[in-house]
Amino acid sequence: MNNFDFYKDVVEKHLMDYIPTVNSNARSLYESMKYSLLSGGKRLRPVLLLASCDFAGGDIYEALPYACAIEYVHTYSLIHDDLPAMDNDDLRRGQPTNHKVFGDAIAILAGDGLLNTAHEVMLRDLTYFFDQPKKLKRHIRAALMISKNAGVDGMIAGQIGDIENQYKECSAELLSFIDSNKTGALLSASIAAGLSIGDASKEMVNDFRQYSECIGRAFQISDDILDVVGDEATVGKKTGKDQELGKCNYVSVLGMEKAQAELQSLTDSALKAIEKYGDKGAFFKELALKLERRNA
Amino acid sequence: MNNFDFYKDVVEKHLMDYIPTVNSNARSLYESMKYSLLSGGKRLRPVLLLASCDFAGGDIYEALPYACAIEYVHTYSLIHDDLPAMDNDDLRRGQPTNHKVFGDAIAILAGDGLLNTAHEVMLRDLTYFFDQPKKLKRHIRAALMISKNAGVDGMIAGQIGDIENQYKECSAELLSFIDSNKTGALLSASIAAGLSIGDASKEMVNDFRQYSECIGRAFQISDDILDVVGDEATVGKKTGKDQELGKCNYVSVLGMEKAQAELQSLTDSALKAIEKYGDKGAFFKELALKLERRNA
Repeated sequence: MNNFDFYKDVVEKHLMDYIPTVNSNARSLYESMKYSLLSGGKRLRPVLLLASCDFAGGDIYEALPYACAIEYVHTYSLIHDDLPAMDNDDLRRGQPTNHKVFGDAIAILAGDGLLNTAHEVMLRDLTYFFDQPKKLKRHIRAALMISKNAGVDGMIAGQIGDIENQYKECSAELLSFIDSNKTGALLSASIAAGLSIGDASKEMVNDFRQYSECIGRAFQISDDILDVVGDEATVGKKTGKDQELGKCNYVSVLGMEKAQAELQSLTDSALKAIEKYGDKGAFFKELALKLERRNA
Repeated sequence: MNNFDFYKDVVEKHLMDYIPTVNSNARSLYESMKYSLLSGGKRLRPVLLLASCDFAGGDIYEALPYACAIEYVHTYSLIHDDLPAMDNDDLRRGQPTNHKVFGDAIAILAGDGLLNTAHEVMLRDLTYFFDQPKKLKRHIRAALMISKNAGVDGMIAGQIGDIENQYKECSAELLSFIDSNKTGALLSASIAAGLSIGDASKEMVNDFRQYSECIGRAFQISDDILDVVGDEATVGKKTGKDQELGKCNYVSVLGMEKAQAELQSLTDSALKAIEKYGDKGAFFKELALKLERRNA
C-alpha cells in the first residue's frame, strides 16, 4: 500500500488523459472542463478508489479510468452546485467558480460534459476486456456502482433534498438522508468500485461498506462544522453558507458539542470496521483520523 | 417491420419503467423528470433505435432500455437548453418548460438526473448478460455509441458551437459542425445502437450510417426552415428564435431556396443509401419522406 500523496499524484498526472480536446468550434467546452478539473481539490474520491483497488490486491492502473471518472462526476456536481440558480458561489478552492469565468451557459454544458465523459470513459474501458469475462464483469459492476451512487437514487437525490428543504425545519432524519446521499454515496462508490476492480472478497466488501458509511457521514459533519467555524482562506470557499441559505447543517440541528461527539464516534466506528486488517489497513485508518481533524 | 406508431407506443408505454421513484425527500426530482418525459414529443430517437434493431432481426424488447436511455438523453438536453442561462424558452411542445414549472435549480438537477439515469439504465442492462458474451459485447458497443454521440465529441460539442458563435458570422462549415453534432450525432447513435443490438451485418451498418447522416442534416435543415416559416401553435414552441438569438441557421446562411433544395437532395441521398433493401426498408423510406415534409 502506498500513501495518500502517491495515489493523488497518479490521479493528477492522468486526470486529463480521458478528456477529448474536442473540435476547435467548441474550444471553450474543453477549457471550461479543464479549468475546474485542474483547480485543485483533495482528490479524495479517486484516491479512495485507487487505494481500495490496491488494498484488494488489484492493479491501480486498471482502476485509473474509474478513478478519473469519479473525479469527473464530483467536479461536475461542484460546477452545477455553484451556479447562481443553485448555491450561487463565486469562489471554489480559492478561485473564481466556473460560471464566473466562462458564464452560466458554458458552465452548465461543461458539467453535462463531465458527467457524460465519466460514463463514456467507463464504457470505453469495458471494450478492452471483451476477452477477459471475469474482469469485464467486475468492471461493469464498478461502473454501475459509480453511476447508481451518482444518480437520482444517490448524489442527485441528496442535492434535491438539500434544495427542496431550504428554509424549512430540518429533522435528524432529513439531515441523514441528505448527507448520506449528497456526500456519502459517492465516497462509498469510490471504495466499492475500487474493491470490485481489485476482486476483493465479500467479507472485505462488507467491512469496507461499514467503514465508508461512517467516513461519509463523518466527512459531511466535519464539512458542516467547517461551514460554521472554518477559516475562509483555508477552506477556499465562503463559510456560513448553510445558515445564509437556510440549509440543513449538523451543527445547527445538533449543536456544536453533539456534532463533534458524533464526528468522533463515527471515526471510531470506521476504525473498528477495519480493525482486523491491522497494519495492512493503515492507509484507511490514517484517512479516517485525517478527516476527523481536517480544517479544509 | 412495424410502423412508426407501433414503436412509439412501445416507447411511451415503458418510458417511465427505468425511472426510480426516488425517496420522498427528493420527490420534486421525480416529478420534474416525469413532467418533461411525458410532455409529448415525437419520440423519433427511440423509435429509430427500436426500428433499427427490428430491421436487423433483433428483439425490440432487448433494445428497449437503450431506446428509453436515448430519450432520457434527448429530454435532458431540451431541459438544459431551455434554461434562462441558455436559450431561455418558456414553451416546449406547447407547454411551459421545465424550469418554468419547477424552477431553475430543480430543472438543472432533473436534467443531470436524466443524463445519469440514461447511463445507469444501460449499465444495469449489461449485468443481465454476463453469461451471453456475444450479446454483452453488442450491448456494450450500443451503450458506448449512445454515450459518445451524446458527449463532448457529439451533442454537447454542437450545443457549445451553437452558443459560442452567437452573433457571429456563420460559415457553411460551422453550420455543418453544429448540426452534425447537435442533432445528427444522437440520431445516428439511435440507428447505430439499434443495429448493434440487432446484430446487423457490417454492410447494413455502413448503408445506414450514410442514411442517418443524411436524415440528420435534413432534420436540422427542416428545423431551421420551421424556425423561419413555421406556425408557433403547430411547432409547439416559439419560432424566429435563431434570428433573435443571432444563431446559425441554414435559411439565413443559404437562403430559403437553397435550404429547401438541400433538404430535398439530402432526402434523395438517404433514400438511395437504403434503396437495395426494397420493401424491407419501407419504414426508413417513409420516415425520410416524412421528415422532408414535416411541419412540427
